[in-house]
Amino acid sequence: MRILLTNDDGVYAPGLRALLPELRRLGEVVVVAPATEQSAVGHSVTINNPLIVQEVLDEERRPLGWAVEGRPADCVKLALRELLPARPDVIVSGLNAGSNAGINVLYSGTVAAAIEGAFFRVTSIACSLEYSKPTPPDFARGAALARRVVEQLLARRPAAGSLFNVNIPDLERHTPRGVRVVPQNLAAFEESYDRRTDPRGRVYFWSNPEFGCPDPHPDTDVTALAEGWVSVTPLQFNLTHENLLREIGDWNLRL
Amino acid sequence: MRILLTNDDGVYAPGLRALLPELRRLGEVVVVAPATEQSAVGHSVTINNPLIVQEVLDEERRPLGWAVEGRPADCVKLALRELLPARPDVIVSGLNAGSNAGINVLYSGTVAAAIEGAFFRVTSIACSLEYSKPTPPDFARGAALARRVVEQLLARRPAAGSLFNVNIPDLERHTPRGVRVVPQNLAAFEESYDRRTDPRGRVYFWSNPEFGCPDPHPDTDVTALAEGWVSVTPLQFNLTHENLLREIGDWNLRL
Repeated sequence: MRILLTNDDGVYAPGLRALLPELRRLGEVVVVAPATEQSAVGHSVTINNPLIVQEVLDEERRPLGWAVEGRPADCVKLALRELLPARPDVIVSGLNAGSNAGINVLYSGTVAAAIEGAFFRVTSIACSLEYSKPTPPDFARGAALARRVVEQLLARRPAAGSLFNVNIPDLERHTPRGVRVVPQNLAAFEESYDRRTDPRGRVYFWSNPEFGCPDPHPDTDVTALAEGWVSVTPLQFNLTHENLLREIGDWNLRL
Repeated sequence: MRILLTNDDGVYAPGLRALLPELRRLGEVVVVAPATEQSAVGHSVTINNPLIVQEVLDEERRPLGWAVEGRPADCVKLALRELLPARPDVIVSGLNAGSNAGINVLYSGTVAAAIEGAFFRVTSIACSLEYSKPTPPDFARGAALARRVVEQLLARRPAAGSLFNVNIPDLERHTPRGVRVVPQNLAAFEESYDRRTDPRGRVYFWSNPEFGCPDPHPDTDVTALAEGWVSVTPLQFNLTHENLLREIGDWNLRL
C-alpha cells in the first residue's frame, strides 16, 4: 500500500514523526508536508507565491519526501500532480497537535489536506490528538491509536475518495474507552479577543487561546472526545443545503 | 436593516466598493474587510498574529468601517465580537472578482466569510462575479445584479443563519438569462504547475492560472454560470457524510 503522509504542523512536527513508523507498518510512506507550521489555515491554497520544495531525509538518511513552502492543501496537490511517482492508495494527514472537531473542522489545515485528497478521489484520513496545554501530548501513544483506526477503516475497503476525520481524546485526562462513530458537532464555539493599543496608537486584537463549545449537541465528535472516546466522523465536501435548495427553487428569483 | 459588508479582495477592492451603494439602498452598511487581498485563503483564521484594525472612511469622509490585517473569517469574528455596535441582520461578502463555484467554494475566502457569519447564526450571502482575464469586469453592473438577488432572498425572510452563494456570470460573454437555483458542482478541477529552478538550485512550482472543470455535473453552479445564468446555491457547513456515517456505525471499530 502506498501512503501519502501530510499535516499542517510542518514536516518536522512531532505528531507527523510519531505517525510515520506506525504507518510504515501498513505500507510504503512518502511525506509531503509544509516546511513550517500552518495551523488554522483552513483550505487555503497558494496562487500568488512560488511553492518552493525541498527533499527531506528521515533519521537514517533515507529519502522521506518533500517539504513544501505552502499550505497543507498545496502539499496534497503538488504531491499528486508533480512529486509522487505513483498515485497513493491513501492520504493520512496528522497527527495534529490538538483536536479538530465541531466547526473547527472548517478552520483546520489538517482536515483541509484530507478534503483535498478526496477531491482527487483518494481515500483520505485526518488524524488529530486533543491535548491540554501546556503539557506536551504523548504523540507516540496517540499515533499508535490513530494507526489502529486507520488500519481498520482501510481494511473495510471504503470507496475511493472516502474521507474520515479521526480524533484521539486527551490522553492525560482519559484512557480511551473505545471508538465512537459520530457526526460533526455544529454548535458555535465561544471565543474572545484581547484588545490592545500599539505604541503608535493603533488598535489591535489578539485571539485568546481559550475557546470552548459551551453547548455541544449530544452524540457528536465534540462530546465523544470530552467523554474520552476516539471519534470517527466520515466527511464530505458537498456544502449544498439540500432542503433549502428545494425550498428556494419555488421562490421565483429573477433579475 | 443592518448590513455587514466584507470580502476577500480587501477593503479598497472595486468589487466591494461597487456593492456598497447597492446595499445602502437596502439598509445601513458597515464594512469590516481585510486590509489587503486575501484570495484563496479559505477558512483561515489568525491565531498567532495580532489583528491590527484601522478605521476607514468612505469617499465623502463618512465612517465606513474597519480594515483588518487578517483573513475574511477574522473580519466577521471581530466585527461581531468587538467592532459592531449591534448584531447585523445580514452579512454580505463580495463582490468577489472571480466566480466561486464548484469545489472552489472550499478555497474561497469570500464564501468562508459567509460561512463564519452562519456560525454566528446571522444570514450570510457570498456574492461573486465571474470574469475573463485580463478584461476588468463591470463591477457596477455585477453589483446591481447581486443586490437584486440579495434583496429577493432577504424579502423571503430566511431562517437566521441561512447561507447563500450567489455567482454572477461573465458579463463580457453573457447577458444574464435569469436566476438558477442549483447545487454546488462536485467534480474535480483541472489545474497544473510550472516547474522551475531558482539560482540556488532549489526547485519551485508556480500554480498556473488556467484551471477548468472539464466534466461538470449538469445543473450545478458551474454549468449554470457557463450558460449565462446567475446561480444561487444555499449552503451549509455540516461536513458529516450521513450515509457513510450510518454504514461505518456497523464496522465495529475498536482500539
